[in-house]
Amino acid sequence: MAQKPETRKEEIVRTAEMLFKKKGYSAVTMRDIAQAMGIKAASLYNHIQSKQQILSEIIIKIGEDFTEGMAEIVAAELTSIQKLEKIIGLHVKITMKNPSRMATMNNDWMHLEEKIDYYLQLRRNYEESFRQILKEGIEKQELKAVNPEIILFSILSTLRSLYLWIPKKEDINQEDLLQTLSKVLLKGIVK
Amino acid sequence: MAQKPETRKEEIVRTAEMLFKKKGYSAVTMRDIAQAMGIKAASLYNHIQSKQQILSEIIIKIGEDFTEGMAEIVAAELTSIQKLEKIIGLHVKITMKNPSRMATMNNDWMHLEEKIDYYLQLRRNYEESFRQILKEGIEKQELKAVNPEIILFSILSTLRSLYLWIPKKEDINQEDLLQTLSKVLLKGIVK
Repeated sequence: MAQKPETRKEEIVRTAEMLFKKKGYSAVTMRDIAQAMGIKAASLYNHIQSKQQILSEIIIKIGEDFTEGMAEIVAAELTSIQKLEKIIGLHVKITMKNPSRMATMNNDWMHLEEKIDYYLQLRRNYEESFRQILKEGIEKQELKAVNPEIILFSILSTLRSLYLWIPKKEDINQEDLLQTLSKVLLKGIVK
Repeated sequence: MAQKPETRKEEIVRTAEMLFKKKGYSAVTMRDIAQAMGIKAASLYNHIQSKQQILSEIIIKIGEDFTEGMAEIVAAELTSIQKLEKIIGLHVKITMKNPSRMATMNNDWMHLEEKIDYYLQLRRNYEESFRQILKEGIEKQELKAVNPEIILFSILSTLRSLYLWIPKKEDINQEDLLQTLSKVLLKGIVK
């Protein structure tokens, strides 16, 4: 199958992602991005308005992918445990596809300017949907009656750190990781 | 009980920690630290050699606290599950005491210069001790036969993120957090 060729703009975003991951958003200049691509800084501006626009495209795209995935999960006819498995799957899938984007989202979201409120809203809504699934699960006695804030924090910390860990485990298979992670996060490790 | 008065050096480190947490190590100058203390930058150097020395004191101190705590746990006559509970307790205790230091360790360890190899060695040894406890637990059938790398990653991600979460939950009690977190991490959330 022929892959769609990368547009110049996609190449800029991909190069920026790599540099943001390595040095952090603040330390990267438009000139660095141009240099890494072997072109002049001025020609970047034919494709993109600013470094801020690149950051915003990276983070908002991922934020919206999570929002969309969560909306499908919330709407599905599933038990709360099945919904939690789907959430774990969503994080594994998005992170395995874009570990650098996840790094940028995690490390540099606070450098968003115009879009920061929108990003924080997406994030709050995501956490709120997650919290509701946990509360429902506790109510229906599918989950243990444990403080849902601690469950939310604990599971999300692991899922949000996947980008740090996955690139070091190149031999790992998406399906195996999902199965094992679901087991560990949902059923614990004590025999 | 009378508390020991803070030395000038301790005040410098505490102020630096706060600024590092807020703006990141790279963006903070010795002048910023002096200004926040209402003194001249030159007088900082009576107490401390450099910004690098401050960073190094913060991170190495915490790294050694974890190393010491882990050595005690490893040496104790306990089941692997009890050892894991002790590890969770170690993270809760150190993080509740120093959330800003934990933030600096997590965000700025890569800016260590002379001490970076020592820091990474402490970190690797810590993870290796943790891994051995998991492997022993699996061998003795106290823990489920699950890939220990995934358990290690999953539990450590949560424990290393505590500094992000604890300061927002000021009403939380150390003993409650420890109990609930142990339950969630070790026994899971499925009823």
